[in-house]
Amino acid sequence: MAVAKINKYAVSESGDTLEIVERPNGGVSVVMADGQTSGRGAKAISTMVVRKVISLLADGVRDGAAARAASDYLYTDRDGKVTACLNILSVDLQTGTIVITRNNPTPIFLAHKEQVECITSDSVSIGTNRNIRPSITEFPLESGITIVMYTDGIKFAGDRTGQPLNICTLLESMLEEEEPTAQEIADNILNQAIRLDNNRPNDDMTVVALRSTPTEVDQIRRMTVRLPVANLPGD
Amino acid sequence: MAVAKINKYAVSESGDTLEIVERPNGGVSVVMADGQTSGRGAKAISTMVVRKVISLLADGVRDGAAARAASDYLYTDRDGKVTACLNILSVDLQTGTIVITRNNPTPIFLAHKEQVECITSDSVSIGTNRNIRPSITEFPLESGITIVMYTDGIKFAGDRTGQPLNICTLLESMLEEEEPTAQEIADNILNQAIRLDNNRPNDDMTVVALRSTPTEVDQIRRMTVRLPVANLPGD
Repeated sequence: MAVAKINKYAVSESGDTLEIVERPNGGVSVVMADGQTSGRGAKAISTMVVRKVISLLADGVRDGAAARAASDYLYTDRDGKVTACLNILSVDLQTGTIVITRNNPTPIFLAHKEQVECITSDSVSIGTNRNIRPSITEFPLESGITIVMYTDGIKFAGDRTGQPLNICTLLESMLEEEEPTAQEIADNILNQAIRLDNNRPNDDMTVVALRSTPTEVDQIRRMTVRLPVANLPGD
Repeated sequence: MAVAKINKYAVSESGDTLEIVERPNGGVSVVMADGQTSGRGAKAISTMVVRKVISLLADGVRDGAAARAASDYLYTDRDGKVTACLNILSVDLQTGTIVITRNNPTPIFLAHKEQVECITSDSVSIGTNRNIRPSITEFPLESGITIVMYTDGIKFAGDRTGQPLNICTLLESMLEEEEPTAQEIADNILNQAIRLDNNRPNDDMTVVALRSTPTEVDQIRRMTVRLPVANLPGD
């Protein structure tokens, strides 16, 4: 599972928040939220939503219930005046499934081997109503699955120049070529989106890619974080 | 920043828990706890400690205060009868520093360029006493810093065969050769430790490596998680 993330051009705080958490009964979940607008206000909202979901998942609450709780929480806290998009992508080793939870009109791409399909079912963002339900897709965890999800900064990349990003085609061509890693897929999509915005992202952009590949030989879990720091002394 | 982690041989739940969290004022923290013994009981303790610390850091609480709070919390919850080792390693972009918080007798290695030193100051694990204080080391975030920290499964690797791991020498030789990535350093140390335990780790093992390298050209944040799954269907 890999993430690539960049802030809106010349804005230091990203309205996109993403955290990865270990599931208490085995597996891992990535929780991604995009708060209304960008900058500090959006960051506060998306952070609040992600923290609520992470904390519920860590207690063993199921993904759909966690998304509903986050919606009610945001609705109560902000009087229904603020909305956020929320996605949860889980590898659940207890059920042996992948679970995709969407409160986000932005589509998610799902590939079995090289066959790419797009999950575009209706899905509303959280916080503006009581009884908001997530759209949930669950299927067995098998080898050869690729999932790509992203925030609307990617969806609307190139909108100003009239050249939107065709992620389906891009993903198909990547999967046809050689076995790309999840990080290569996320990086490639983010880089294309940045280029379409003339190297100055019009919005915060986050891409998450998941790949299930044949069992590795070792039983080692690995995690890497790369954080760019402007003007590191001693360069 | 990279993590490599493996469970004790033939034990499905690791007593080591590790989470990485974004700091609210910029930067990232990795929180690592090792509960007494191994298996389910140890997992519950280390998870409780890590979640408490993560939640405080996300509220903007400073690392030392978060460690003390986690100690008092564990002491209260378990009547002072259970202990856990706790490390927090933070890249704090607000202060421009690296902060190492230790409640763990296991040493931490710190290198400026190829000069490796070892932080071995006295440090007690949390939970068994009121007023337990962490040992804190803070220094400017510069280019060319390498930090390695790990749980006692690594420290005691090879103990049964009388061949302990000399991490200082190992790290020096890695840094002298070519520019290893944080993941290569973590993997290399973990693999050596597993080998010294005859490929059957005597305890849960976790290694964290941090490297500050010259500024990358892009401003993209990246995160990768690799989770081994036994018997993935469709392999």
